[in-house]
Amino acid sequence: MRFLFFDSSSSNLFLAVRNGERTCFMQFSGDDKHGSSLAPCIDSIMGQVSLRPEDLDFIGCGIGPGSLTGVRIGMATAKGLCYPHETPLLPICSLDLVASQMAHQERIVIRRARAGYYYWRKYRASHDCKVIPDSEPSFSSVESICSALEESDSFLFVDGRFDQDDFPSIEWFLASSPSADAVLHIIDAALEDIGPKPFREVQPLYLQRSLAEDNWDKRHGNESAKDL
Amino acid sequence: MRFLFFDSSSSNLFLAVRNGERTCFMQFSGDDKHGSSLAPCIDSIMGQVSLRPEDLDFIGCGIGPGSLTGVRIGMATAKGLCYPHETPLLPICSLDLVASQMAHQERIVIRRARAGYYYWRKYRASHDCKVIPDSEPSFSSVESICSALEESDSFLFVDGRFDQDDFPSIEWFLASSPSADAVLHIIDAALEDIGPKPFREVQPLYLQRSLAEDNWDKRHGNESAKDL
Repeated sequence: MRFLFFDSSSSNLFLAVRNGERTCFMQFSGDDKHGSSLAPCIDSIMGQVSLRPEDLDFIGCGIGPGSLTGVRIGMATAKGLCYPHETPLLPICSLDLVASQMAHQERIVIRRARAGYYYWRKYRASHDCKVIPDSEPSFSSVESICSALEESDSFLFVDGRFDQDDFPSIEWFLASSPSADAVLHIIDAALEDIGPKPFREVQPLYLQRSLAEDNWDKRHGNESAKDL
Repeated sequence: MRFLFFDSSSSNLFLAVRNGERTCFMQFSGDDKHGSSLAPCIDSIMGQVSLRPEDLDFIGCGIGPGSLTGVRIGMATAKGLCYPHETPLLPICSLDLVASQMAHQERIVIRRARAGYYYWRKYRASHDCKVIPDSEPSFSSVESICSALEESDSFLFVDGRFDQDDFPSIEWFLASSPSADAVLHIIDAALEDIGPKPFREVQPLYLQRSLAEDNWDKRHGNESAKDL
């Protein structure tokens, strides 16, 4: 099996490649300029395992939720790479990548969206360190997430920046970056559960509308927005 | 802070670099030819964060225990890179790199040495996912390790190939590859505990003598070996 995977939906850039038995995993952090760093990173990691775009059985891409610009960069790059050889695209929920820690516990992973709102997904406890989602990825207010936490015995894991005042009475943990093993497990699971799709069918998981869309609605009303 | 770190003591090649806020972590697996792949990987990861050898505050290197050839390749490369600018060298115990999993539990990590013998180290439980060693790295027979396991409440983690018949009545887990966060934590801890050394002083952790040395002794007796 030969694939390339990447996720640019957070401040960390994750990349993985497989060429038969040879795999390479890379995490690049601290430089939010994914727009300029993603392509050189892809070139570098593909070179490590002697892969060319035409060799790939599929491309995997983190489709969000997360930074809207980051998701756009990832999806645009993935679809651009898929186009020349009609390479299929495997969509991966970006939250799954930071959910591998403490897999033996039920847990909710959150990632900050806009003020007072978070992207989140719930994960089941597993006995083999695997990531098993227990809800769809969602976009909710702090209140809704607190209710979900109260109703379950889940631990709260936070990925990236967040406002500590949002969860004043809840114990939380920093979500840890995934290991190479964890990322390869997640790709294997997605390959079995969803499988690669014709790349034109794969849509990003924005979950929220952009502020620009909301502002348009406020100024012009819902009807005129639909006419666009 | 600016550093380069690598470990080639197992079938996985681990590399990490830091240039201020920018960090890059890489794991390369499935190709045991570290002798030919280490240098291109170093070149590639240094390029990712725009570092040249003369920029480095120190070089970190996994000093074993593990594959004798792998440790030799890593140490030789590290010392070669340190030589031109007298860059200090930070020694890291290679077993620590695969000990980050289940950090909230007391655990023993083993790595196969020769038939019936393993390298191993014991780790304390920690509340913050950090790797806290609780013994020196050792080279022992299966019987000694079983005794150590019986005397403690440690979980057994196995890194790489091993003979399942060696531990027939003990529950064991496969050691997982480390995340970027885990490796950077280990480097930070070593920096605080040991600090970088003049590179000529750093010695590999072979722990066992090579079979060639043992065979020489058998043929010539211990005395003649000492005279060499």
